[in-house]
Amino acid sequence: DFKTKEKIIIGVAGGDGIGPFITAEAQRVLEFLLADDVKTGRVVIKVIDGLTIEKRAACGKAIPDDVLAELKTCDVILKGPTTTPREGDQWPNIESANVAMRRELDLFANVRPVSVPEKNIDWVFYRENTEGAYAIGSKGIHVNEDLAIDFTVTTQEGSDRIIKAAFDYAEKSGKNKVTVVTKANVIKTTDGKFLDAAKAIAKNYPTVEMDDWYIDIMTAKLVDEKRRSQFKVMVLPNLYGDILTDEAAEFQGGVGTAGSANIGKRYSMFEAIHGSAPRMVDEGRGHYADPCSIIRAVGMLLEHIGYKNKADQLQKALDICGLYEKKLVLTGRATGATGAEYANYVMETLSNV
Amino acid sequence: DFKTKEKIIIGVAGGDGIGPFITAEAQRVLEFLLADDVKTGRVVIKVIDGLTIEKRAACGKAIPDDVLAELKTCDVILKGPTTTPREGDQWPNIESANVAMRRELDLFANVRPVSVPEKNIDWVFYRENTEGAYAIGSKGIHVNEDLAIDFTVTTQEGSDRIIKAAFDYAEKSGKNKVTVVTKANVIKTTDGKFLDAAKAIAKNYPTVEMDDWYIDIMTAKLVDEKRRSQFKVMVLPNLYGDILTDEAAEFQGGVGTAGSANIGKRYSMFEAIHGSAPRMVDEGRGHYADPCSIIRAVGMLLEHIGYKNKADQLQKALDICGLYEKKLVLTGRATGATGAEYANYVMETLSNV
Ligand SMILES: CC(C)[C@H](C(=O)O)[C@@H](O)C(=O)O
Ligand SMILES: CC(C)[C@H](C(=O)O)[C@@H](O)C(=O)O
Repeated sequence: DFKTKEKIIIGVAGGDGIGPFITAEAQRVLEFLLADDVKTGRVVIKVIDGLTIEKRAACGKAIPDDVLAELKTCDVILKGPTTTPREGDQWPNIESANVAMRRELDLFANVRPVSVPEKNIDWVFYRENTEGAYAIGSKGIHVNEDLAIDFTVTTQEGSDRIIKAAFDYAEKSGKNKVTVVTKANVIKTTDGKFLDAAKAIAKNYPTVEMDDWYIDIMTAKLVDEKRRSQFKVMVLPNLYGDILTDEAAEFQGGVGTAGSANIGKRYSMFEAIHGSAPRMVDEGRGHYADPCSIIRAVGMLLEHIGYKNKADQLQKALDICGLYEKKLVLTGRATGATGAEYANYVMETLSNV
Repeated sequence: DFKTKEKIIIGVAGGDGIGPFITAEAQRVLEFLLADDVKTGRVVIKVIDGLTIEKRAACGKAIPDDVLAELKTCDVILKGPTTTPREGDQWPNIESANVAMRRELDLFANVRPVSVPEKNIDWVFYRENTEGAYAIGSKGIHVNEDLAIDFTVTTQEGSDRIIKAAFDYAEKSGKNKVTVVTKANVIKTTDGKFLDAAKAIAKNYPTVEMDDWYIDIMTAKLVDEKRRSQFKVMVLPNLYGDILTDEAAEFQGGVGTAGSANIGKRYSMFEAIHGSAPRMVDEGRGHYADPCSIIRAVGMLLEHIGYKNKADQLQKALDICGLYEKKLVLTGRATGATGAEYANYVMETLSNV
């Protein structure tokens, strides 16, 4: 438990592309909020470099060994987006650093809240974060020139722990409903296992209602303004969680507005759910990148390590500041505010809440 | 080519649940439109029974042998939805009849148009229909009590033919743009192959622009009212096609309003994209099931076999009739119109267009 912990080490890994820009702004907000405890040494904020595409490419690893070792000295991590190389790119074909970090640190629960009060939307997604279609990384097989095979891996333990996390939250939060999303009518073996696990676990939560839908129809249901507020807590295998949370975030203002918590038993990591937008940096516009999503991630991090009041304060300030786009109006510039200006605005607002 | 064919055999397979109800109505519309050619014997409409869950369960096969043989005597098939049994159901764990039929008849292209003129939406989806995450049916492996594995299979030939179909259509229709949707940043082996295939094929279509997005962000982009009309023709591996077309259909009024064409070299099959709603039948409301989607499938079938004028006529009539739900107003009944009343209304309207 973090509340009783003498010392908490927070690692800040900027990633690349716009990552270092927005992460630096988020770090300023974090330091602002935790200033007292940083002074006493209870909280240590550690900057971890080297999660850049250049360094990852040079060693041909999704996470360089020394970076991984450093990450493992921390209790929690704030992570900026990282660029995933693709075939045809200038980079070798290495795995996504995101996916690798989730697996290496065993961050099995990817928790993504989406809340739009005026639309009556209040969803929390529990995405399984270490297995499913993501389990094998880039280790699929090119059998021959014609045939390629990938694997989806679902374990009982892996399913049970994420499903339990979702039910625990549904019970504790009083939301009392969990929707299980699979494609068990076609992907019968793995998704069938996940759905069966959910049905078994649901029996231990008599106050929590469970229903289940297939991922295809679920993407339609989120669009349906009349019926989507019936959903509260959703639990999904990795790939469906990836897909459905991007759609869901769009109703809140886009993936740029959503934070994401990656929780494991030993470590946890908090991040923006958008990409690293290398083009912005190439065009010299990196300092205009929107830090909104990663500042939300700071809020989730604060709550996770026991600073609930600070997290609430930050949430209030963010609500007042509104979306980054609104700063267009504040600055009167076509390009909008810089990330630093937005972070300043958040901190000014924080001083008054 | 159907235009020069002396005789065209149309098989009508009702499926189960609400399938036989709505398919019977669609068949009446089909017979109404092709009455002359049915009289001369140029068109033969053949009812194919036995695609019911009871019969499939009895023989433990997704498609009973005699039904498959009968289907293979037809040139084109109109198919009602079929129930896929699930673990925990009263039925054995047999594969989806949909999925099996697409594979057995090698119907590699699943074409789904979604058009909402007033929202500036005019999308056509080319979904790969025989491989990807659907390739192995229910033949995943329960390695032991803890571990389950499924396979995703992508071939060069399978990718090439669906991608070519999408580009051909984009060129022919003058839409001149194809968007490739994968998750090649994570599912690198199979989705990477699909994306590479698209990049190679795009070179042969100099007038067609190609772009590519990942499936997660794509579900968000369809929600974005300002930017979604940039999409024209989309081509996707099987599972992403399944997911994205349900979301897309929602903007048009729901999956109940969309038809789907399953095209192969030898055979083709036209169907509604919604499910078999067995509950409606259990509650005695089968004759209230909405035949809108499968009547749209009739339109696609007519166009496919060379009756373009009839297809256009039907489209006009359906636009006038509007969505089935509007019939609530016409009948003044809380339950809405029956499927037969809606089909009658379509045929009346057809007589006047
Ligand atoms: C960047 C990518 C590897 C990642 C994922 O697919 O999980 C992202 O889309 C996310 O949702 O966090
Ligand atoms: C019923 C189901 C097997 C089918 C699919 O997954 O393809 C359906 O959702 C569809 O889109 O036609």
